[in-house]
Amino acid sequence: MSLSLEAVRAAADRIHGRAVRTPLLESRTLSALTGGKVFVKPEVLQRTGSFKYRGAMSRMTLLTAEERRRGVIAFSSGNHAQGVAAAARDLGTTAVIVMPIDAPRLKLENTRALGAEVVLYDRYKEDRAVIGRKLAEERKLTLVPPYDDQNIMAGQGTIGLEIAADIAALGETLDVTIMPLGGGGLASGIATAISALSPRTKIYGVEPQAFDDTKRSIAAGERVSNAPDAKSICDALQVQMPGELTFPINRRLLSDVLTVSDDEVLAAMATAFRELKLVTEPGGAVALAALLSQKLDVKGKTVAVVLSGGNVDAEMFIRALKTAD
Amino acid sequence: MSLSLEAVRAAADRIHGRAVRTPLLESRTLSALTGGKVFVKPEVLQRTGSFKYRGAMSRMTLLTAEERRRGVIAFSSGNHAQGVAAAARDLGTTAVIVMPIDAPRLKLENTRALGAEVVLYDRYKEDRAVIGRKLAEERKLTLVPPYDDQNIMAGQGTIGLEIAADIAALGETLDVTIMPLGGGGLASGIATAISALSPRTKIYGVEPQAFDDTKRSIAAGERVSNAPDAKSICDALQVQMPGELTFPINRRLLSDVLTVSDDEVLAAMATAFRELKLVTEPGGAVALAALLSQKLDVKGKTVAVVLSGGNVDAEMFIRALKTAD
Repeated sequence: MSLSLEAVRAAADRIHGRAVRTPLLESRTLSALTGGKVFVKPEVLQRTGSFKYRGAMSRMTLLTAEERRRGVIAFSSGNHAQGVAAAARDLGTTAVIVMPIDAPRLKLENTRALGAEVVLYDRYKEDRAVIGRKLAEERKLTLVPPYDDQNIMAGQGTIGLEIAADIAALGETLDVTIMPLGGGGLASGIATAISALSPRTKIYGVEPQAFDDTKRSIAAGERVSNAPDAKSICDALQVQMPGELTFPINRRLLSDVLTVSDDEVLAAMATAFRELKLVTEPGGAVALAALLSQKLDVKGKTVAVVLSGGNVDAEMFIRALKTAD
Repeated sequence: MSLSLEAVRAAADRIHGRAVRTPLLESRTLSALTGGKVFVKPEVLQRTGSFKYRGAMSRMTLLTAEERRRGVIAFSSGNHAQGVAAAARDLGTTAVIVMPIDAPRLKLENTRALGAEVVLYDRYKEDRAVIGRKLAEERKLTLVPPYDDQNIMAGQGTIGLEIAADIAALGETLDVTIMPLGGGGLASGIATAISALSPRTKIYGVEPQAFDDTKRSIAAGERVSNAPDAKSICDALQVQMPGELTFPINRRLLSDVLTVSDDEVLAAMATAFRELKLVTEPGGAVALAALLSQKLDVKGKTVAVVLSGGNVDAEMFIRALKTAD
């Protein structure tokens, strides 16, 4: 069964008053640079610094009393980790998070600071899904997957509801929505909401060049994997392949999938620093990178671009500022 | 005549739809760090990256047709420069801006990019007010002062209206407002609005240690100057002495004036990066610095802290990130 607008609305009710209702910010500088009318949806201002809290809370409000007593488990490179850890704390349950050893230090520290138990693994040698499922069985924990779950996807889709509502309140018509694309939870959720509320809006996902699995999967007509040794500075978008539930939705609703290089991402992070005064992490800046590197012609169009996360170590941020200078 | 709540409300009407209605963001991390319930007013998200656009637009909407034809002049270290330049562009007039040679490069570049004519001076040898008045007379330009003007002060005060409205909408009672203090336009405007709408709120201004002119002036009972060779990383707060119009208001309405060191400011900028995902400039972060360095006990209190600007060069931002690491 595909995700429905009603499911996204139900998720919005569940997370209301918990997740931050992030603003939609018009950027005259981005408008001048692209020739469009550009609005930014800064999920960097969300609780835990990324959109992932929405999906985690959407799913975890549905835990039974018994499930809450036992706790949850998640596998994540860092943003889902923090989202689940924060939701667990806010709902009075506990979380075990399986994270890669090379996750950004800030993400590891924040996840632990939110009270979660962190279990580390090597992302080039081990399968986080296998480790997560094993721990879940042993300790009777409820698995909160990063994207392949209807209630997670519905939670991320609440961003689409807010974009559509804010654009309508301004009396604008949304021509283009563009957002980062990893496992596909964010994209499938937003696409579900926007396509239902604003059917003529073109919806684009953006992947790192080395992790263009959804782009290639759409071309192939089936889910294909990324190279096991693929590398990118976009730690938040490093998935093995598109989700089983997210892929059919994204294949159907996305107008296209664009890709960006690491250098384009670093330049976008510097532009967000300089012009938007917002801190973005590499994976959170790919949609802005696509827009700024003119992968898409938005002249004369009203555009909403999602900045999905801002959990970046100082070292990487300094690299972005120095690259652009 | 002192500034009235009605004047601030009239300014809000004039800038409505032009200035960004910035959100009020609750920060659970800042709340945990201080023991209070902390809300952030991010004027870094304002058009031109600082609150100054509000005051400039508030004043410049009142220009006569003849004055608009001739253009305006302003003297500013950079944020007021950008605010006036952007307001001039938005209102279809021209701006000459007198700026110090050592202003941050970003501020100089942005002011020129907004179409203003920039005239440079040496802030340690020349008096910008004298230069500004001379040019104004020669070219019959209308002077838009940085703070000592009722309509400028009223424009900055719209921030106070928004804070009070948003806090009330959340069902909270505001115990403390804390904001940066330079010439006193921002402080006098916000203090006028908040004290009228929320009389029991304690209102604090924060100055750099080397530019504590308002603190010393209140103690002395009259306006006193800063040392001519005083230096601070807070370029936005480097004034000679409190304003003639702003000082009596701040003396009457502020509960106290606090001071912070450059190191405390750099640490606050790093915290805003890490925890808020917001870019702040040194002068924009002094109120946050006072809060984080415990100059004020806010345990159990509801606090609004103003981040007044984010126009910072990459070099200075990198310095903040490295200092804190």
